[in-house]
Amino acid sequence: MSLLIVGTVAFDEIETPYGKSGKILGGAGTYIGLAASQYTKDINLVSVVGGDFPQSYKDILTNNSIDIEGLKVIPEGKTFFWAGKYHKNMNQRDTLITDLNVLADFDPVLPESYQKSDYLMLGNLTPAIQKRVIEQMAVRPKLICMDTMNFWMDIALNDLLEVLTMIDLLTINDEEARQLSGEQNLVDAAEKILDMGPKTLIVKKGEHGALLFSENKIFHAAALPLRAVLDPTGAGDTFAGGLMGYIAKTDDTSFNNMKKALIHASAMASFAVEKFGTDRLTEISMNDVDNRIGEFYNLVSFDI
Amino acid sequence: MSLLIVGTVAFDEIETPYGKSGKILGGAGTYIGLAASQYTKDINLVSVVGGDFPQSYKDILTNNSIDIEGLKVIPEGKTFFWAGKYHKNMNQRDTLITDLNVLADFDPVLPESYQKSDYLMLGNLTPAIQKRVIEQMAVRPKLICMDTMNFWMDIALNDLLEVLTMIDLLTINDEEARQLSGEQNLVDAAEKILDMGPKTLIVKKGEHGALLFSENKIFHAAALPLRAVLDPTGAGDTFAGGLMGYIAKTDDTSFNNMKKALIHASAMASFAVEKFGTDRLTEISMNDVDNRIGEFYNLVSFDI
Repeated sequence: MSLLIVGTVAFDEIETPYGKSGKILGGAGTYIGLAASQYTKDINLVSVVGGDFPQSYKDILTNNSIDIEGLKVIPEGKTFFWAGKYHKNMNQRDTLITDLNVLADFDPVLPESYQKSDYLMLGNLTPAIQKRVIEQMAVRPKLICMDTMNFWMDIALNDLLEVLTMIDLLTINDEEARQLSGEQNLVDAAEKILDMGPKTLIVKKGEHGALLFSENKIFHAAALPLRAVLDPTGAGDTFAGGLMGYIAKTDDTSFNNMKKALIHASAMASFAVEKFGTDRLTEISMNDVDNRIGEFYNLVSFDI
Repeated sequence: MSLLIVGTVAFDEIETPYGKSGKILGGAGTYIGLAASQYTKDINLVSVVGGDFPQSYKDILTNNSIDIEGLKVIPEGKTFFWAGKYHKNMNQRDTLITDLNVLADFDPVLPESYQKSDYLMLGNLTPAIQKRVIEQMAVRPKLICMDTMNFWMDIALNDLLEVLTMIDLLTINDEEARQLSGEQNLVDAAEKILDMGPKTLIVKKGEHGALLFSENKIFHAAALPLRAVLDPTGAGDTFAGGLMGYIAKTDDTSFNNMKKALIHASAMASFAVEKFGTDRLTEISMNDVDNRIGEFYNLVSFDI
């Protein structure tokens, strides 16, 4: 099945206790697309870059089955640039530079061939942009998943609440779930958020895994305890890409299949952090993914 | 199989956002014993109380299959007393009162009938006391489990390191694992701690579950997302009681059985926090436990 992804394509410059990346390919749309490309070869990407975006980076996208007809190039503009530095414990980071550049005026226009995509993944962007994408779909996707963050809850809450009524699946982290709902307890928080519109909620807890809430059921996906975390950048986007890639591939939005999708999402995220930027995502094979899914299975399975 | 428990028996006074307990039965040895009593009826308790410890509390212990021949009563002394108040988020608490009383001079003496117990659970106490208990065993137990805390790492590290060479299984929380090992990454931390003596390490992560490390294998037990957490006091001790109770009942220390023990430990802890003090532990049946184990199974199980 086809998957439409809307999200940033960017230059990142990352420093962690293990090294410096230099200026590399980044952005939510990039991570989502590369992760999803393990599962489906029918991926459409809507984003914007400047004239400085090199052909070699476009090639990385297209070589991984990501159609870039929807990647708008503004020749006189510069590509979105983010620079950040991680603390010693890797759970905290400081943003050093955020140059929105061409992203500041991004108004996505969906190519006609994208407007009937089966599945839609809205990467973290202003809620107003996410809404305009949904409105351009000629056929309502089978499932719309949306990622967002606390920043939009602070400055664009009304827009965010409106988009929540238009989507099926929301992915946020635990602190964001508490902020959005006003509830400290995650079970209470999930109930309130599901009342806002989405049928399903995924709460990402980083090294503590992720929780899936839907139909009064809860599923917990553990995170694989990893020794080598070199660069956490893009882990959440990679998670969303694995999730929606798996759902698009299997064309099944049941709770039982979402559980498997959550494990694949966690597996893809566990790869992403093993090297800087997107390096690990572009070298793994489906065989690597299958082996890792086995590790996740052994991590939590027990007989009763 | 018989289980010997060494741990405090105390009066607790607890305040949470949901109410105040008044002065109630508490202590690590109490919680461990009541949780273990779901699994085995052959429980020996070594502890100390003052002349103020009422018969009704002794009855609670003995009515739950806990032998109190080893519960020393010092008529002229007062029972260990702890008072604490939980913050709104329930993950933090302030200790208001710690009156060691008879615990200050506690020097455990094992009744002869306890010295051949099959399994030994050392609740959180000074490492020197834990060591003296091990030395009084006439037959080396099949498994010695030890709980400890950061306080002993701060003031009695050498004693603690010595006891670690005498035990099989250590239970600590994630911050304590980092402190004891000097390693931030939990996989690295576990490797270093297992080099200190114990064959098996359990890292408790509270609402994020627990990790079992042994024989180069890792198992993750999720915590059940709970709506009603009334009082977290004793959750860690209840966890240890469920763990060792299950192991004593099944008389099996294999990794595969430890995984099941960890699920039972998590299930017992999930009950403990549902009411103040030990109230919930003394009202549940094995049928309740079995139903909850089913909930834990559904929470994490998926097909591949």
